[in-house]
Amino acid sequence: METKLVSTLEEAIRSVGLKDGMTVSFHHHLRNGDYILNLVMEQVAAMGIRDLTVNASSLFDVHLPLMEHIRSGVVTRLLTDYVSGGIGRHLSQGILEAPVEFRSHGTRATDIASEKTPIDVAFLAVPAADCRGNATGKLGRAACGSLGYAIPDAMYAKKVVLITDTLLPYPLSDWAIPECFVDYVVQVPEIGDPRGILSGTTRITRDPVGLVMAELAAKTIAGSGLLKEGFSFQTGAGGASLAAAAALKKIMEKEHITGSFALGGITGYLVEMLRAGCFRQLMDVQCFDLDAVASIRDDPRHREISAIHYAGPGTRGAVVDSLDVVILGATEIDTNFNVNVHTDSSGCLMGGSGGHTDAAAGAKLTMIIAPLVRARLPIVTDRVTCISTPGDTVDVLVTQRGIAVNPRRPELRQRLLEAGLPVTDIEALKKRAEAIAGIPRPVPRGDRVVAEVLGRDGRVQDQILSLPSDF
Amino acid sequence: METKLVSTLEEAIRSVGLKDGMTVSFHHHLRNGDYILNLVMEQVAAMGIRDLTVNASSLFDVHLPLMEHIRSGVVTRLLTDYVSGGIGRHLSQGILEAPVEFRSHGTRATDIASEKTPIDVAFLAVPAADCRGNATGKLGRAACGSLGYAIPDAMYAKKVVLITDTLLPYPLSDWAIPECFVDYVVQVPEIGDPRGILSGTTRITRDPVGLVMAELAAKTIAGSGLLKEGFSFQTGAGGASLAAAAALKKIMEKEHITGSFALGGITGYLVEMLRAGCFRQLMDVQCFDLDAVASIRDDPRHREISAIHYAGPGTRGAVVDSLDVVILGATEIDTNFNVNVHTDSSGCLMGGSGGHTDAAAGAKLTMIIAPLVRARLPIVTDRVTCISTPGDTVDVLVTQRGIAVNPRRPELRQRLLEAGLPVTDIEALKKRAEAIAGIPRPVPRGDRVVAEVLGRDGRVQDQILSLPSDF
Repeated sequence: METKLVSTLEEAIRSVGLKDGMTVSFHHHLRNGDYILNLVMEQVAAMGIRDLTVNASSLFDVHLPLMEHIRSGVVTRLLTDYVSGGIGRHLSQGILEAPVEFRSHGTRATDIASEKTPIDVAFLAVPAADCRGNATGKLGRAACGSLGYAIPDAMYAKKVVLITDTLLPYPLSDWAIPECFVDYVVQVPEIGDPRGILSGTTRITRDPVGLVMAELAAKTIAGSGLLKEGFSFQTGAGGASLAAAAALKKIMEKEHITGSFALGGITGYLVEMLRAGCFRQLMDVQCFDLDAVASIRDDPRHREISAIHYAGPGTRGAVVDSLDVVILGATEIDTNFNVNVHTDSSGCLMGGSGGHTDAAAGAKLTMIIAPLVRARLPIVTDRVTCISTPGDTVDVLVTQRGIAVNPRRPELRQRLLEAGLPVTDIEALKKRAEAIAGIPRPVPRGDRVVAEVLGRDGRVQDQILSLPSDF
Repeated sequence: METKLVSTLEEAIRSVGLKDGMTVSFHHHLRNGDYILNLVMEQVAAMGIRDLTVNASSLFDVHLPLMEHIRSGVVTRLLTDYVSGGIGRHLSQGILEAPVEFRSHGTRATDIASEKTPIDVAFLAVPAADCRGNATGKLGRAACGSLGYAIPDAMYAKKVVLITDTLLPYPLSDWAIPECFVDYVVQVPEIGDPRGILSGTTRITRDPVGLVMAELAAKTIAGSGLLKEGFSFQTGAGGASLAAAAALKKIMEKEHITGSFALGGITGYLVEMLRAGCFRQLMDVQCFDLDAVASIRDDPRHREISAIHYAGPGTRGAVVDSLDVVILGATEIDTNFNVNVHTDSSGCLMGGSGGHTDAAAGAKLTMIIAPLVRARLPIVTDRVTCISTPGDTVDVLVTQRGIAVNPRRPELRQRLLEAGLPVTDIEALKKRAEAIAGIPRPVPRGDRVVAEVLGRDGRVQDQILSLPSDF
């Protein structure tokens, strides 16, 4: 059989014809355990290739060596959906001349598909592949489950290189990426560190404030009128969000409600809800833990979806558009319900929208769950440092001290009041937070734009400024 | 939930903005039971839209009303991979001014993906869908199994309209077409006649000549040296091909050979071989019978593949490129091993390559199986009426009176001789056929080009002339 195997990454890079000025892409399913982005960029740098655009669905601290490639001019432009704190610190110092372009996971996928942000070469880490390029995340020593964020890159990049540590006999069944999109396959000893890829299990918070918020969140969902037969749901993997899911499960079981689907990054808690009959189906763009990986591999009700199918904006729509409720986090929320998940309150990059903005835009009820005060700073402000998710897509803020409903949703406010929930308004929550933590001093900012946040409509939604030079 | 349902086909056609001069596409998974092409074209004609290009993966006699739309100028250009005899007769009379463009199934898919033949609106019959456009061929009253030929249209058409008679709750699991590619969904009472979609069961030939050829075919495969662990195989649904598969099964079971995969249009016989352990996997672009539909629905070893994954030409390759053996038919084969499957020997259109040319190009051993004489005409000629599949991709002709090996493959000829098989040469087979049936008179031809056959390299491989006016 004619294979697509090449023996080194160097040979693959030569074979695809990577040149100065091109765009390369990476996915983040191996998260902080990923070896591949560094391996590829090191090789690219060694070959003297420069002036590259990197389009990475997310970056983690394991990718810090990329900062050196930026400093040396190997990389001159960066597109991403999320950066960890360590990476963010460097970017906030303005090491790139061109502002980083932040998109949501859905917008990234759509912009790749439409060639608004064309990819010359996608370098895709895959936990298992065959010699012709059929590949899956469900098998192999670094199994990560869904490869949802890699699928658009595979489908639309001009050239596709797979990098794996596990070659299986042809044809590999149950592929996420079919061979017809793949140019070359490179085998390496290890694509990643499983300990960095998955948390063994995601864990429900034990923090009493988190548990109070979780109870309130579940009651808010029940009170909204959306919790009925066919209910659909998304939540993050944060401890309070998981606690909210657990509280919701109790209500659903007690009231014998069968939801249609849970969506998004999938954890063992959502798998448990599937098994308990709370949902008919899981739609999984990314697995967060080992239970989710085992489930997507073995349970046909648990389905892998691409980032386009998950959250791609546009008239054709995506699964997020059919979502009833999403629970999301925030580093700041302002009195117009705008949410910041890109920076900390000092303005330093340490996050990104990921699917936050997509799910908020799609869901009938978008709930932000956050403690009133975090790191001795009020969570509610007059104007968030960065608008990651616009306030007109956010419906309710749940804190441990009460619930604020967006004035755009008077009928929701009324429902929650009727359900006996502690509804207040967001100005009151702000005052309450300030009473505890004081009014924070304005933070000095630098004068360079280090990042632009693009909205789902493709326009610049906000800009992020550099840190002051003495920061 | 916001649905994509529109209440009439007319509304869908208006909503997608179909206009004069555009290209519409259809798939042929409902074969001679399809209601949708006629329904759509009738509506389009009623709305006064003209000068359309129709890109249909195949056309059957049920689609004869399309000939009227050609005569009236609603359709002025036709791209297809296969036409039935009734359709072929009209086209051979030259009712279209522009020559029909014939492609293989693989080339059609690739040309759609690369926008060489862009599609403005794909009208896709789907046996089951949800209200947002997740769709499958595995469920519903007109279940046809795989939707492999429809997937490229869904992925790359500018607008996609699904037409179904079976709406299932959102989200439909196990979609072949995900909602993110779909603009509108129309429900109609019936998308097709199940009797025309599937033969109840495909049947092995009982014809003694066919059985002799089948035995010889199986022995040729065994003698070729390819029948070993990991063996891969494709065959058509013709009676003699199925008999050859049955003979092959006996050998594989006796010799305890486990193949890797069987490919292509899948029949109950291949499902039986899967269950008997002859193959680890079925790669299915199209189901031919009810057993295949049940199997692709229920058995995870039986996988749906798109036409691109199946057979798309190009450097990235497809599953056909990894094929060991394919058994194919022919209406004529010439002494250079060129094969005609487009016309009968009088030059009248009555077929097309489908996947014939793709599988021949990919397989290590391409076998043509045909009786020496058919309809009192020799099967072997000096020059086929139309080169559907080029002789340099054909390795062996198996007839009831002996086997001819392409001179390009002396080592294969040697192997088959050593295996004690009745190897002769193709000139001898031609003489033998002529001794039985006589030398056919040259057939008069018209002077217009009614069709062009494009090769897998995109170039015109042959032209088909009109019938003489007094035919």
